[in-house]
Amino acid sequence: MMNRQVTLANRPAGMPSESDFKLIETPVPSPGEGQVLLKILYLSVDPYLRGLMRSTHSYASPIGIGQVMAGGTVGEVVESRNPKFQPGDIVESYSGWQEYALSDGSDLRKIDPSAAPISTALGILGMPGMTAYFGLLEIGQPKPGDTVVVSGAAGAVGSAVGQIARIAGCRVVGVAGSDEKVRYLLEELQFDAAFNYKKVTDYQAKLSELCPSGIDVYFDNTGGPITDAVFPLINNRARLVLCGQISQYNLEKPEMGPRLLFHLVVKRARAEGFLVFDYTARYPEARERMAKWIREGKLKYRETVVEGIENAPKAFLSLFRGENIGKELVKVA
Amino acid sequence: MMNRQVTLANRPAGMPSESDFKLIETPVPSPGEGQVLLKILYLSVDPYLRGLMRSTHSYASPIGIGQVMAGGTVGEVVESRNPKFQPGDIVESYSGWQEYALSDGSDLRKIDPSAAPISTALGILGMPGMTAYFGLLEIGQPKPGDTVVVSGAAGAVGSAVGQIARIAGCRVVGVAGSDEKVRYLLEELQFDAAFNYKKVTDYQAKLSELCPSGIDVYFDNTGGPITDAVFPLINNRARLVLCGQISQYNLEKPEMGPRLLFHLVVKRARAEGFLVFDYTARYPEARERMAKWIREGKLKYRETVVEGIENAPKAFLSLFRGENIGKELVKVA
Repeated sequence: MMNRQVTLANRPAGMPSESDFKLIETPVPSPGEGQVLLKILYLSVDPYLRGLMRSTHSYASPIGIGQVMAGGTVGEVVESRNPKFQPGDIVESYSGWQEYALSDGSDLRKIDPSAAPISTALGILGMPGMTAYFGLLEIGQPKPGDTVVVSGAAGAVGSAVGQIARIAGCRVVGVAGSDEKVRYLLEELQFDAAFNYKKVTDYQAKLSELCPSGIDVYFDNTGGPITDAVFPLINNRARLVLCGQISQYNLEKPEMGPRLLFHLVVKRARAEGFLVFDYTARYPEARERMAKWIREGKLKYRETVVEGIENAPKAFLSLFRGENIGKELVKVA
Repeated sequence: MMNRQVTLANRPAGMPSESDFKLIETPVPSPGEGQVLLKILYLSVDPYLRGLMRSTHSYASPIGIGQVMAGGTVGEVVESRNPKFQPGDIVESYSGWQEYALSDGSDLRKIDPSAAPISTALGILGMPGMTAYFGLLEIGQPKPGDTVVVSGAAGAVGSAVGQIARIAGCRVVGVAGSDEKVRYLLEELQFDAAFNYKKVTDYQAKLSELCPSGIDVYFDNTGGPITDAVFPLINNRARLVLCGQISQYNLEKPEMGPRLLFHLVVKRARAEGFLVFDYTARYPEARERMAKWIREGKLKYRETVVEGIENAPKAFLSLFRGENIGKELVKVA
């Protein structure tokens, strides 16, 4: 039996292409003492992986050329030599872009398939959901009545951020890249306002119109010109939550933009970055609350699912073209 | 008796010149019931005044054309119709660029001339000193062993920041604009390292050499390319204290610079602006500690004093050419 794996073939310069990945087949490994064999069911593709394709180390080690691409996964235990796991167990793991993987169990989290669809462990109840929850609540510190602006608002993180901000009593304005996304935000997710930045030339004028009381919290998934437009509109003591800068990930050197730090001085405002894994110990708290909000209909999510491990590169690349609504997933088996 | 006053003649575009100010003479006013007449002894010129010369409102109202220029002052009560003040009292006030001023007393703070030179009420024990104290300690949150980088390090604020950081057990690196300033920082103020940015082309390489353990706190008085060079060198959870952006104050529209926010994401770091007057209630605490450090020889200061109200514009303009070491003052009488 063979294990199909997607490896990193080249370090891309600029926007990656499918030729930067290579699909290979290796024999499915056998679990040793204490190990389990996982059959991967779902694979998560996320923008942060672009950073791991570089040769330079940032907060995580680069993926080596020829190595299997990294990524969060949900799998089923198909063989176990670890007393803590039985065949049939559904687990979250970080097994990367492949159909089968070994684990010693230390990195596995059992999922209850009766509690929520297992794919949510990679989305609304997984890393992106945790990112939204801790980024907004811990770094953004929203207060009822605040105006919260979210960029990348229809993505896995942004769509959760906006809804949690509404639960927190805020007015929520989303920035997204298609009319369909804007409709989704306004009609399904009940954002207070949203606009398609691809159809607007003056982002600042548009944000100013949609945020008549200024901006108290900005949750930034994109960086670039949308973020530039936010700075002049922030209120005193605004919080700018720097989560992602997807507009910059495929650039080989920093893009130039207007210097805007003085807005932080006069508004006594704060721009702060965070990485969700610093909050790992508190994921159970967040998962419990978010699952409750989902049951109550206050928190909705959508998944864009692509089938087949061979399509993982395509799914990953679509993130940078902004093609996904909600969480982009690959259904592996 | 006439009162010489310096008024705002024009709103400058770009770097102001002496022709943007006008020296006028008006009769010295007489105090009404409850008022005192102040004879101004020292006048403070500070970079933030450039912002008040614009027509647009930031955190304080613009100075009107034909109005007396604003600014902190130390004066002597020469006539009093207010029972709280006696002729001969030395007071801090915000009387602006003139030789005499009226006050109802509500904005006056009595100074004890035996405790410290009265000019220090505008410098090390005044607004710039308070800015250094609260900006560094509250926003920068230095920990012993931290590497603290200060831009504008030989100025009124920067020179105090560096010394307070040393008192807090930090390693201090200053960036300044002349060899004389660098000598002052290294020899008199005992900074651990300093460099003259006008003699260095690659600021990042220089900072990297002087900060082998990275940068934990950056106290920014200048903005611009020096600040750009700091971002790639920050450590996890670094604090960037945004105090001033003097390199930008004479620009008519934002200068372009590299987009650097992603460094804040991967380092979980924070850039935060502040305005010192938010800490007014706590000035007594800061003044007491700083006066003690001065007595103990741990905190030194220097003043660059220009004589005569007519030279206030010249003194002000010299700030933007970086000509001052320590606090720039005008001795009015």
